[in-house]
Amino acid sequence: MPVVKRINHVAVVVEDMEKALSFWRDALGIPLHGTLDVPAEKSQVAFLPTGESEIELVKPTSEDSGLAKYLAKRGPGMHHICVEVDDIEGMMAQLKAKNIRLINEEPRTTADGKKYAFIHPESTCGVLVELYQL
Amino acid sequence: MPVVKRINHVAVVVEDMEKALSFWRDALGIPLHGTLDVPAEKSQVAFLPTGESEIELVKPTSEDSGLAKYLAKRGPGMHHICVEVDDIEGMMAQLKAKNIRLINEEPRTTADGKKYAFIHPESTCGVLVELYQL
Repeated sequence: MPVVKRINHVAVVVEDMEKALSFWRDALGIPLHGTLDVPAEKSQVAFLPTGESEIELVKPTSEDSGLAKYLAKRGPGMHHICVEVDDIEGMMAQLKAKNIRLINEEPRTTADGKKYAFIHPESTCGVLVELYQL
Repeated sequence: MPVVKRINHVAVVVEDMEKALSFWRDALGIPLHGTLDVPAEKSQVAFLPTGESEIELVKPTSEDSGLAKYLAKRGPGMHHICVEVDDIEGMMAQLKAKNIRLINEEPRTTADGKKYAFIHPESTCGVLVELYQL
């Protein structure tokens, strides 16, 4: 049976990265591990690890991305929860068998080799959930 | 210096607890640790621990609560992130010194003795953030 191991990260969509960092890094004191430009997702991501998870601040870098549209519609705030699993293909098969709607039918792969896939909020009571396998 | 130790939980507001559990517990397989009625908050909470954090599913039990109004306005989905700190009074003083707006001026205490306080989303770029000290 595939297993959820932990919350890998909570992603927060932001309009103004410096303003967001002034809260999460400067006021709350969570160290900024680094920032990354992700052209494939038309976004910039700041990683703030805490315990075994991370807060990820995500800023759209193009107005025509899905993230930019989400930001325009809903405003800044929590965007998705990512849970790490030990077997992403197995988990996706288990979810499909339970009629859970997936956004990605097959896992995608990040530039550094992590497998990921999103589950549709329709099947999760309103939460965009990402699966990660490191 | 007060320190953020980890994400304690991510709270998800739900309309239908059984439907939410059918995703988080039955499809994703995160064990349900238990459910708790919290009359002081007019809510029912289901705790699903994963790694060192929890997913908390929160259902309003009265239509006149803040949570019920949030649900009516925004629909089901992520409600807040709770970060655990080692010194909640110290953290709240540090936040005030940086002009961060707190919802609770002093820590409140749960029935089982945890101290908690909320930070206003206005100061966090749209995220309701809870502080916890165990």
